[in-house]
Amino acid sequence: MKASQFLISTLKEAPSDAEVVSHQLMMRGGFIKRLSAGIYNYMPMGLRVIRKIEAIIREEMVAAGAVELLMPVVQPAELWQESGRFQKYGPELLRLKDRHQRDFVIQPTSEEVITDIARQELRSYRALPKNFFHIQTKFRDERRPRFGVMRGREFTMKDAYSFDRDVEAAGRSYQQMFDAYTRIFGRMGLTFRAVAADNGSIGGVRSHEFQVIADTGEDAIVYCPTSGYAANIEMAEALAPTAPRAAPAADLVKTPTPGRSTCEDVAAFLGVPLHSTVKSIVLATDALDAAGAPVGTTIWLLLLRGDHSLNEIKVGKLEGLQGGFRFATSAEIEATFGCKPGYLGPIGIPPSVRIVADRSVAPMSDFVCGANDADFHYTGANWGRDVAEPTLVADIRNVVAGDPSPDVAGPLAMQRGIEVGHVFLLGTFYSQKMNATFLDEAGKPQLMQMGCYGIGVTRLLGAAIEQNHDERGMIWPRALAPFEVVICPIGFDRSDAVKSAATTLHDELAAAGIDVILDDRGERPGAMFADWELIGVPLRIVISDRGLRDGLVEVQGRRDAAATSQPAPNVAAFVKAALAA
Amino acid sequence: MKASQFLISTLKEAPSDAEVVSHQLMMRGGFIKRLSAGIYNYMPMGLRVIRKIEAIIREEMVAAGAVELLMPVVQPAELWQESGRFQKYGPELLRLKDRHQRDFVIQPTSEEVITDIARQELRSYRALPKNFFHIQTKFRDERRPRFGVMRGREFTMKDAYSFDRDVEAAGRSYQQMFDAYTRIFGRMGLTFRAVAADNGSIGGVRSHEFQVIADTGEDAIVYCPTSGYAANIEMAEALAPTAPRAAPAADLVKTPTPGRSTCEDVAAFLGVPLHSTVKSIVLATDALDAAGAPVGTTIWLLLLRGDHSLNEIKVGKLEGLQGGFRFATSAEIEATFGCKPGYLGPIGIPPSVRIVADRSVAPMSDFVCGANDADFHYTGANWGRDVAEPTLVADIRNVVAGDPSPDVAGPLAMQRGIEVGHVFLLGTFYSQKMNATFLDEAGKPQLMQMGCYGIGVTRLLGAAIEQNHDERGMIWPRALAPFEVVICPIGFDRSDAVKSAATTLHDELAAAGIDVILDDRGERPGAMFADWELIGVPLRIVISDRGLRDGLVEVQGRRDAAATSQPAPNVAAFVKAALAA
Repeated sequence: MKASQFLISTLKEAPSDAEVVSHQLMMRGGFIKRLSAGIYNYMPMGLRVIRKIEAIIREEMVAAGAVELLMPVVQPAELWQESGRFQKYGPELLRLKDRHQRDFVIQPTSEEVITDIARQELRSYRALPKNFFHIQTKFRDERRPRFGVMRGREFTMKDAYSFDRDVEAAGRSYQQMFDAYTRIFGRMGLTFRAVAADNGSIGGVRSHEFQVIADTGEDAIVYCPTSGYAANIEMAEALAPTAPRAAPAADLVKTPTPGRSTCEDVAAFLGVPLHSTVKSIVLATDALDAAGAPVGTTIWLLLLRGDHSLNEIKVGKLEGLQGGFRFATSAEIEATFGCKPGYLGPIGIPPSVRIVADRSVAPMSDFVCGANDADFHYTGANWGRDVAEPTLVADIRNVVAGDPSPDVAGPLAMQRGIEVGHVFLLGTFYSQKMNATFLDEAGKPQLMQMGCYGIGVTRLLGAAIEQNHDERGMIWPRALAPFEVVICPIGFDRSDAVKSAATTLHDELAAAGIDVILDDRGERPGAMFADWELIGVPLRIVISDRGLRDGLVEVQGRRDAAATSQPAPNVAAFVKAALAA
Repeated sequence: MKASQFLISTLKEAPSDAEVVSHQLMMRGGFIKRLSAGIYNYMPMGLRVIRKIEAIIREEMVAAGAVELLMPVVQPAELWQESGRFQKYGPELLRLKDRHQRDFVIQPTSEEVITDIARQELRSYRALPKNFFHIQTKFRDERRPRFGVMRGREFTMKDAYSFDRDVEAAGRSYQQMFDAYTRIFGRMGLTFRAVAADNGSIGGVRSHEFQVIADTGEDAIVYCPTSGYAANIEMAEALAPTAPRAAPAADLVKTPTPGRSTCEDVAAFLGVPLHSTVKSIVLATDALDAAGAPVGTTIWLLLLRGDHSLNEIKVGKLEGLQGGFRFATSAEIEATFGCKPGYLGPIGIPPSVRIVADRSVAPMSDFVCGANDADFHYTGANWGRDVAEPTLVADIRNVVAGDPSPDVAGPLAMQRGIEVGHVFLLGTFYSQKMNATFLDEAGKPQLMQMGCYGIGVTRLLGAAIEQNHDERGMIWPRALAPFEVVICPIGFDRSDAVKSAATTLHDELAAAGIDVILDDRGERPGAMFADWELIGVPLRIVISDRGLRDGLVEVQGRRDAAATSQPAPNVAAFVKAALAA
């Protein structure tokens, strides 16, 4: 490819709305162009990366036995009503009406359509297992699209759906996809981690996220370097402390803590460690009548160690809180505790309040907690002596680095990641609602066991850049780079020798199947080099009159500190070897 | 590929709503599956054809210097308001609102978005010429979707857009696309014809349709076998007859023609040739005031030879009719002519009626026409003697086979075709409305000259089948076939020899880069053969125990009347040669 036949369009400055580095670099490098909030044109440079991502995904999906088809972008509402998602999905689901006022949606995923296909096409146990995938445009009407392609509205996703005769077979399909994903992200040259994830409202059986590791990632993930355990922080279990509770040693004292309403402030004011304080969080659940009107509210007091944070996913799985909860209002808190927030605690509160103590709170003794009196805390509080033993002890906090791994293999470490893939064993959530059955050997209809498997194709661009960049620009792994090699001739328009050497080398590398671009724009070296460092092509070859006089060209990897001179006749072989390394 | 790892899903009967053979065969062959009116799932078999179509298009577009990008499916209304298409496009344009009640459209084409890109990216004459293309999902909310993928609502289209500095350069870009299209459809193995087409309301400079020839095609096309002239019938000029008008020989006679209101009936009743009769067609144009309210109506009488048909496109280009016209109502006709339709003619009508005589009507003498009196016609009518010479003579009819070619090279022939591509020199229609300019050498802004170039990717499936099928099913050209070769083993599950020979041959052909499928489903031969004849794979190889005993396998082309036996060891070489032929 020659630059003059392509479109190279770089910017010195990123637009001000680009918040994250991948967004900034993609805009500056001319990979994407904004059309509307969260809707981007994929410019020629960006599209080349997308095509490479798609090709790797497609190859590995087919190798794993999945069959490609293509489901529509615009889907009729009827199927979505059948699954219940038309009603339940929030405003992220883009709904529209056609000219006949019939309801349609722009697909954010295709569970309904594929289940409809499966219930028509896979009628016998002999047709199973089957795994269908497509790579198609999706739309999710985010309230606040941001981070460029990482949380856009229109995006490209690969979604696969497996259909199996029973749970065991579905587990095999799941594992095949898990393994395929491991190969896919490995081939892309990305550092990633598969982490156990929460199954969400679908209540599926098993679920893993594939996270590209990046300091700027939105997701917190934890792992055990010893055992390989890894999970999304939403999912990672905090084990109960094994040490028994110490006997009370201090008296309960109501202590003034004027204006200190956070555990941090109280601990500093009293000169005690933060982990000896207890944090109070007040939730509310509303009982509804048959018509959905609230008929009564239950107040919950959640107790966490002062140095811990609440995990709402875990809370949402507790008996009595599964139907949904909210944070209590200030009015509800004052009516219940007789005190404003910031000074709450478990001692002396109405028996109607349901207390949940975190596993780390239950073994505490001589702890500090609010006195339910503004500007006062208790010190020396003890379970059993000052307040009844908590009846509900549960894991309701996020793990922290150093916590024991749930598999008891060593301390946990933490990383941040960007979710680029998700494998999900759905069970019969959709097949039940949509009556997707097959006939077993006895001719009896059985519900299909389903799995779904997504990869964010366009999001991968952003994730790869968040992981691989420096102050000069992007650094593409070879497998995803828009071009593998760029030839930068100095004085292309002035020197016949340079022009001829550059063109010959270009043709030779291209003939060898290397994805090479020759920068024949005639730019000055500084601007030309800056462009290609920004674009992040793995290998740069500089051809100049001066070098050619000595029979040399300069080769420099994108991560190399300096160029090396190579004899011109060897450079093609050198490039091939360098790229293969 | 093995059939067991794919999805083969054939039907004995096509669904009743499948009107045309391509739709019937695609449904029966499991190429597509209906999701909603005009919205289809592309099943694995159909998608393979689409991918082959896309690959050929992509290769030839890049070879012709076009650069691929990807523009969004969901596009903001603002750009469409700028071009005026948001207001002017009918209900075929699918409009929607996002969660913030902002207007969007689902793209039917992308002129606005690409012009927006061009005006930002192509700022200097040095950046021109440039040609961008994408292959993307389109939506057109057809009032009555039909013919399967041929007139669907959601479809895939390749659309390219060229930007040039002047008309001459734009003409070169147009020719490059014309040539690329010729290669594309040629490589697909289709019989096609590029025909000159009307430029429509955009008033572009030049336009050709690429028509796949098929008896079932919706479009009538004409061509001159001698010169190669070819045009859409809307476009093809009917030359004026060269023979001078004969002198009047008959008297004007008002003749009873009871109940004969068509030229055919009148000619038969009177015993005269149809081409000696004149057909009267009454149109109306409405003058509007500034607010768009009708303030006056002009009645037009169009005169055609009885054996000719009206060409509304040509009529719409006449002075006074360019602003739009309609057929007059019965009430308007009776008020003007004092006679009901069926007996109208030019003699003795109010001078306010504007007469347009077709070029073939002007030289007629002694003709038959309506007498403006129910159940009466005139015979022996003559221009100049019985009615004033027509002041407006124009080409307003469709050409018919045998008419002289507009390039005066011989008689025209007619064919029917399916439009699969369109190249269109737009001029400055969009660049003017959207102010897409570049700076010329003098630093002066100039409007870009644009062209647009479409190929209906999914429609090509239907067109290829309409052209290539028989009573047993589809007959795919090799370049588009979902598989090039199918291996049909007889008794795959019973005979180890058959299984082994079939598998070995499959692996050998696959290794040679041939797109082969092994039917390992264990179907009975009759059902298996019927499936593959329906699916239309070019070459079938049958492997049986009986054949193997003689060291032979059977090879049969899809169009061959019978199979030939080939020595088993030679079959791979034979297949390669047969496919290359």
